[in-house]
Amino acid sequence: MIAEIVSVGTEILMGQIVNTNAQYISKALARLGINIYYISTVGDNAERLSETIKTALGRSDIVITTGGLGPTSDDITKEVVAETMGIPLVFSAECMAAIENTFVELGREMPPNNQKQAYFPENCIIMPNPRGTAPGCIIEKDGKAAIVLPGPPYEMNIMFENHAIPYLKSKSEGIIVSHFIKIFGLGESFVADKISDLLEKQTVPTIATYCSTGEVQIRLSAKCRESYEAEALIKPVEAEIVRRFGNDIYTIGEETLAEVVSKKLLQRNKKLAIAESCTGGLIASMLTDIPGSSKYLIEGIVSYSNDSKVSRLNVPDSLIHDFGAVSYQTAAAMAEGILKTSGADISVAVTGIAGPDGGSEEKPVGTVFIAVSDIKCTVCKHYKFRGNRARIRQLTALTALNLLRLKLQETDTQN
Amino acid sequence: MIAEIVSVGTEILMGQIVNTNAQYISKALARLGINIYYISTVGDNAERLSETIKTALGRSDIVITTGGLGPTSDDITKEVVAETMGIPLVFSAECMAAIENTFVELGREMPPNNQKQAYFPENCIIMPNPRGTAPGCIIEKDGKAAIVLPGPPYEMNIMFENHAIPYLKSKSEGIIVSHFIKIFGLGESFVADKISDLLEKQTVPTIATYCSTGEVQIRLSAKCRESYEAEALIKPVEAEIVRRFGNDIYTIGEETLAEVVSKKLLQRNKKLAIAESCTGGLIASMLTDIPGSSKYLIEGIVSYSNDSKVSRLNVPDSLIHDFGAVSYQTAAAMAEGILKTSGADISVAVTGIAGPDGGSEEKPVGTVFIAVSDIKCTVCKHYKFRGNRARIRQLTALTALNLLRLKLQETDTQN
Repeated sequence: MIAEIVSVGTEILMGQIVNTNAQYISKALARLGINIYYISTVGDNAERLSETIKTALGRSDIVITTGGLGPTSDDITKEVVAETMGIPLVFSAECMAAIENTFVELGREMPPNNQKQAYFPENCIIMPNPRGTAPGCIIEKDGKAAIVLPGPPYEMNIMFENHAIPYLKSKSEGIIVSHFIKIFGLGESFVADKISDLLEKQTVPTIATYCSTGEVQIRLSAKCRESYEAEALIKPVEAEIVRRFGNDIYTIGEETLAEVVSKKLLQRNKKLAIAESCTGGLIASMLTDIPGSSKYLIEGIVSYSNDSKVSRLNVPDSLIHDFGAVSYQTAAAMAEGILKTSGADISVAVTGIAGPDGGSEEKPVGTVFIAVSDIKCTVCKHYKFRGNRARIRQLTALTALNLLRLKLQETDTQN
Repeated sequence: MIAEIVSVGTEILMGQIVNTNAQYISKALARLGINIYYISTVGDNAERLSETIKTALGRSDIVITTGGLGPTSDDITKEVVAETMGIPLVFSAECMAAIENTFVELGREMPPNNQKQAYFPENCIIMPNPRGTAPGCIIEKDGKAAIVLPGPPYEMNIMFENHAIPYLKSKSEGIIVSHFIKIFGLGESFVADKISDLLEKQTVPTIATYCSTGEVQIRLSAKCRESYEAEALIKPVEAEIVRRFGNDIYTIGEETLAEVVSKKLLQRNKKLAIAESCTGGLIASMLTDIPGSSKYLIEGIVSYSNDSKVSRLNVPDSLIHDFGAVSYQTAAAMAEGILKTSGADISVAVTGIAGPDGGSEEKPVGTVFIAVSDIKCTVCKHYKFRGNRARIRQLTALTALNLLRLKLQETDTQN
């Protein structure tokens, strides 16, 4: 079965928003084992939208649209899809009541143009919208189907989970099982080189590498009727890759590096404290983004000024004076300082030059020191990151999380 | 002139990465006044890519591709575009030398398959890649053009700025001027209602509203030969909208809320300190993401535990006991505590329940208190946000920044 995504909205064509809906749906389709060959974005224009839908239905079995279900005259997706498929719209009294009810709950009067949201292609499956007024629908004709979803991700996601996924599952044959082996701190070409023999002779599972900031993912995929068959095919290849990369692998799965660190802290019942300079709260924010972080995080200090490093973290003034705020000595003193003052079991500290200003010949932009400390010892490392401010901050935060991960694993081996 | 984007890469179709390149290019095209009606994504498959390129060249004047310029056999964009346009590839000794030089600088031997990156469509304009080995190119034929760019954003962006924009400027007639009026804290339908008369009778400038987390943007666009003509058409409509929304507008321009706050702090030479509970470093991270933040940010404390609130911010233990960590009293004490202990001129503090756990009937998930404090007074507000953990954290951080903005503006009026 082949599916295709059509994202509708002039705001995407104008670059006003990034098309995260397409990524969300692609990922879900990959997991369901449904092939996808095209994603198209088109504006709120009836002629071009109709042409795009016609092309998509011609080459794919299922077309999934997002956007253009609102109450304004700009919102034309449902109408255009129905017309392109040759299906008339009919009024749904049940839907009208649900929409009116939403307005009652909001304590607002329903504007008359919301009425159009209660018209649907005849005989379609209506998908209710618990987070907004625009319901979606699934339209079937001549062995093809269109799944019509709203644009706001918050509304689209829940409708997709609750209605589109069960529908797609009922239609698809076999499933794709994918394992993601996530490696931190090695370059993509280095990783590809180290598995070049596996990449060359791949059949099932297929092997692909992807890189994002600081990390490389190796995806192993197999399509079978049942998941255990796919797992059996993936297993030996996965074991071989694990053997080659060892500790550089931070997870096999969908978890982020922050989630892995979070889980390790919870499992080991270790309390964490964070002292950040150049990342300015990014490390704390990555960890507190994960539910349950209040169970292990005592505090984070964003000591952006030297005064704060001295008063909050007990970094000796003389040390900053002698070695600089960006140095092995300051990073180590920050980590040790917050460990003591917070009463945590483990701490991480970063100090560096994120740019664009502040660099020197001796310490150029991208110079970063990261220290991890526990009661037994402090480890401090020096990095030279490349890129713009956002990338340097991101790489610093992720590398700090990776050092925490390695420290927590090491504690495992020792105890 | 009509342009169209073709993003090439199976990793986009698999949902492995989000297509930020398309947004980047769309935004640039909008600014240049070049119309764009379609964005297509297609995998690393010669037949489907060729079909997509053919369709795009049939309906648009310029096709811009990203991705598929690497050294591996999967990377086929340049080859397929050239073949589809009927142009042979020729070897560029100059490019080969540049690629070889990149490897010398990296201290690595060049793998033989990088040779293919030195072959280009005959008579094309070669765009050098200062951040990688894959050069891009601009291919012209029969009044149509293809601009072929690499996939990694870090490489694509600089090539687009340095070569594609000057090329596009030389080809385009007239320019689109767009102004973005950004409003914080009002719903999209409320904003649309308040300008419904303007929306209905719009001609030039065109008026459109977009919403994202916590904010609504009103875009005013006019296309003219010269920018001053467009500005003159936009000006009266903009003034009318400013009259209607007043202080709810945080900027007219491209700035983010964090950038506006950052600029106000710098202009007024005010030092800031931040105390965060439920946002866990997100406010500090948003501000420190902006260059120059070290000039005004003294420190941020992520006091995730009650102990940290007491020891770092001098919040009385009894107060947390009597009113709870999520209360008017604690938020105000956090803001006043960090103001005093840090020596800042202004402070902001947040405490709340981001969920998914921790809610009660009295204080459900989404209950948030935000306080802003300076030497004269403390203002504390109670919010009930809806959504998941990420959305509640985001709304809390943005609302805190907006309160800071209003406080800084108010100081203006008083002094």
